[in-house]
Amino acid sequence: MNLDLVNKHQSTLNTAVKALHERTFFAHYPENPTPEIYGETADKEGREKYKNHLNQNFTELLQENPEAWVGQEESPYEQQSLGVKYPYFSVDTLVSRAEEAYHVWRKVKPADRAALLVETLERVKSRFFEIAYATMHTTGQAYMMSFQASGPHAADRALEAIASGYEEMSRFPEATEWEKPMGKYNIKLSKSWRAVPKGVALVIGCSTFPTWNTVPGMYASLVTGNPVIVKPHPKAVLPIAIVVAEVQKVLVEAGLPPYICQLAVDADDHLITKELAEHPKVKLIDYTGGTEFGNYIESLKGKTVFTEKTGVNSIILDSVDDLDKVANNLAFSVSLYSGQMCTAPQNFFVPETGIKVGGETVPYEEVVQKLADAVSGLVNNPKAGPHVLGAIQNPATLERVKESSTVKGKTVLSTCDFSNPMFANARTCAPVIYEVDATEKESYSRELFGPIMLIIKTRNTDQSIEIAKEMAMNYGAISCGAYTTDPTVKEKIMDEMSLAGTPVSFNLTGGIYVNQNASFSDFHVTGGNPAGNASFTNPEFVIKRFTWVGFREPSLS
Amino acid sequence: MNLDLVNKHQSTLNTAVKALHERTFFAHYPENPTPEIYGETADKEGREKYKNHLNQNFTELLQENPEAWVGQEESPYEQQSLGVKYPYFSVDTLVSRAEEAYHVWRKVKPADRAALLVETLERVKSRFFEIAYATMHTTGQAYMMSFQASGPHAADRALEAIASGYEEMSRFPEATEWEKPMGKYNIKLSKSWRAVPKGVALVIGCSTFPTWNTVPGMYASLVTGNPVIVKPHPKAVLPIAIVVAEVQKVLVEAGLPPYICQLAVDADDHLITKELAEHPKVKLIDYTGGTEFGNYIESLKGKTVFTEKTGVNSIILDSVDDLDKVANNLAFSVSLYSGQMCTAPQNFFVPETGIKVGGETVPYEEVVQKLADAVSGLVNNPKAGPHVLGAIQNPATLERVKESSTVKGKTVLSTCDFSNPMFANARTCAPVIYEVDATEKESYSRELFGPIMLIIKTRNTDQSIEIAKEMAMNYGAISCGAYTTDPTVKEKIMDEMSLAGTPVSFNLTGGIYVNQNASFSDFHVTGGNPAGNASFTNPEFVIKRFTWVGFREPSLS
Repeated sequence: MNLDLVNKHQSTLNTAVKALHERTFFAHYPENPTPEIYGETADKEGREKYKNHLNQNFTELLQENPEAWVGQEESPYEQQSLGVKYPYFSVDTLVSRAEEAYHVWRKVKPADRAALLVETLERVKSRFFEIAYATMHTTGQAYMMSFQASGPHAADRALEAIASGYEEMSRFPEATEWEKPMGKYNIKLSKSWRAVPKGVALVIGCSTFPTWNTVPGMYASLVTGNPVIVKPHPKAVLPIAIVVAEVQKVLVEAGLPPYICQLAVDADDHLITKELAEHPKVKLIDYTGGTEFGNYIESLKGKTVFTEKTGVNSIILDSVDDLDKVANNLAFSVSLYSGQMCTAPQNFFVPETGIKVGGETVPYEEVVQKLADAVSGLVNNPKAGPHVLGAIQNPATLERVKESSTVKGKTVLSTCDFSNPMFANARTCAPVIYEVDATEKESYSRELFGPIMLIIKTRNTDQSIEIAKEMAMNYGAISCGAYTTDPTVKEKIMDEMSLAGTPVSFNLTGGIYVNQNASFSDFHVTGGNPAGNASFTNPEFVIKRFTWVGFREPSLS
Repeated sequence: MNLDLVNKHQSTLNTAVKALHERTFFAHYPENPTPEIYGETADKEGREKYKNHLNQNFTELLQENPEAWVGQEESPYEQQSLGVKYPYFSVDTLVSRAEEAYHVWRKVKPADRAALLVETLERVKSRFFEIAYATMHTTGQAYMMSFQASGPHAADRALEAIASGYEEMSRFPEATEWEKPMGKYNIKLSKSWRAVPKGVALVIGCSTFPTWNTVPGMYASLVTGNPVIVKPHPKAVLPIAIVVAEVQKVLVEAGLPPYICQLAVDADDHLITKELAEHPKVKLIDYTGGTEFGNYIESLKGKTVFTEKTGVNSIILDSVDDLDKVANNLAFSVSLYSGQMCTAPQNFFVPETGIKVGGETVPYEEVVQKLADAVSGLVNNPKAGPHVLGAIQNPATLERVKESSTVKGKTVLSTCDFSNPMFANARTCAPVIYEVDATEKESYSRELFGPIMLIIKTRNTDQSIEIAKEMAMNYGAISCGAYTTDPTVKEKIMDEMSLAGTPVSFNLTGGIYVNQNASFSDFHVTGGNPAGNASFTNPEFVIKRFTWVGFREPSLS
């Protein structure tokens, strides 16, 4: 292996491992897309490079002999096809190439694998802007989120997985001398251990966060020695195709087969995910997406699976210092990327007796109005609305918003009409708001993916907590926001939501939102409720990808 | 909590954590039952205490209001009932008491839990001899193994689980300040994390190693904050009942409920294991035993399970320095506790062309004869045989040995007659040996629990390795012994068996055997093949018992 790479990246790795355990702020990749950091021409060049992909075959991948060229992406901003075509390979070809690559990759030492993978991220960094435009026009995210989520934030999540895998594989010695006193003599054994990778890994991507939700599993499997087949959502391929292409280039430069990391694109006339997932040689599966398919993935025998499915996220409103600030913060959270985030809040619990604001009680109705006004204000602010809301990735999400008017309750904001001044054809939708009584559980006990806010009237905060916990335990939750100035209530919320495996953000106002999870500090998903069985990146996320096997023999000394 | 306990045991814990990562020899509990270490009267008193249990109710447990007194143990040495009766509780009583205790125990800090649990082991230490006799007369183990496996070795495995759980729960900070530079201002958040125990744990014991195979899961669940229900095999209750009683005493002394660790004994007329395992409140299950029931346990939905099932362990004979030493070592391994160990070898692969001994080729037939002679020599040595073989725990094992004569092959040693001079009524059986051709896979591709040795004639060592790997991958393996003086063959065996998740002991002769796995150094079971999904004690064994949940709010500073 290339020792230069190890020297080049060892301090980055060490810093990343340290950051994992300190959990203070750490980012290796700057999130601000300014010319000062990324260069004067970076944005312009990125946009051009993105445009150059349109209506072309994507020929950067080093996977030989494609069986066809396929692609079905379309821009939510322009509602027309990107026209990008990717090489298609049968499942048998993908898996047999991965299996062959496995026996090369597993023999590369963990430290070398880690260094090589950090190098791939450095290469990806040079394409952050191109990836940003590719993300915009596949997911519908606004520009800033596209840049941050698919670029630096994803790269930091990948680095986190590399660091964690590298650390876990280095936690036990490669070899040691074992000497047991037996009284009259000692028994001496030379022992050694290998962290044996489990085999071919499959990473199934989603349509809304094509790199952010894919790279943790992808890099976690790679660093632990498993070859990876990346199967993106057919509507969001380009951002991760660029990442895979960069990984392949670095692998080949190091004298390794590109098949250590392959892109697997669905055929235009059929999806290949199930065939891949059920292949007996596929041992590891990472999945992000809907619950139904996620449950199917979890039910497969003989696989180690890591899932992020869907959840019902709650906001608990009890008492606040400044209701306007709270309403503005929550309006942003529910509007950000039009609610198409797994961390977006959906169920807002407000006691029928109102909430305390700086010692005074503000009635329930006024709280509802404040929230509605804050959402309207944000949506109708031309300097903010389009940049926060973005576009709607999937037409089915629009349908869902329309159907949500059947929720048993009172309509607060019902029109989702909203137009984007920069993209006349954009598929858009502003948040809708309904009031629901706490007794109408069937209305709010499922994820309504998209910009849908339900205000649930409860008897009191105790009931709010009880239902938020019940929802998380039964249907999953990835985030929870709570507003209280009462330490006893706060501790109760922490205790109850901890039993539901749900992280809680308290009293957020200003420029930080419940939707955001920071690499190296916030575990993303806990694995402790039905929203998913895995967590970015706790030790479990990497150690389940390999097996410790020991060897011993009498010492020669 | 009792700060004295933390002070008393912190250095033990720190030493144990260090030992986990150095993996050199470490034992906190001396394995030698000499008067110098344990006191002049320890053995005698232990035997008397054991005898005092016979035909009595076991009243030491602090679980109140038993519904009945039950017990069905009998001594394999005397083939008569022990007559010990244990309190019986319904599954609902056990689980509701555990659930209540959960909310106390989970709030005790990990360091306090760890210290308290080390204290319980110190109390158990004072009863090692009593436990040894209880183990002899339930499992049929010989005296020395009963003492070592159920006493110091089990206590060290428990300490290992405590240390590992304590370490993993301390790997991330309880709280930190997170400060993100945003250019013109910083966002400051106070963050904290809790390692949240998953809930009620069930530990299902086996009949052959009632403490050794039970305490790792039991202590791993306890240290990570989960209340435990210990469900021993109905034929091997007393050894672990003593352990549970000591745990309960320490809990109550610390002001905690005894229901944090309960003993659950089967009714005399029905087994309660399935009802316990399927109870929705039971979240964690540790299981040791047969594959069929283990597969059922693994198939239960909504549980985190840790299994040690059965495997087909291989010995690969290629080339040796001294065949007599090798044969003696292997004869011991196959005879130890009459093959009733999950690590006992069963399939001995010998090339039809013979093996190399110090450069000379020894023909296949001679190798077989050497092995048979070594077994006969051990069995017929009155100073060794009875102390190595012990007695047969289960009459079904004797039946299996008799049925093994239907193996398609040639009989080498067929009589299992063997009598124990100290116990005239002991249920005993000496090893039987059959030769099988490599083509007769159905004869050797399942575990034949008990003293059954199959010598499998292969084309060459490559085929031996190929079949040993195939057996391990398809039917599981917990150990593998290999004899080769060729470094290339050695590396091939390591590589191939590592892919089958099977540890390999090379060239063992003298006083160390393939069956033995040392705490703090040898991972017991890898989790990487069908013999089990868990490993004593790798990080996965403890971290799957709790969930990391984070909290954050704007910093007040």
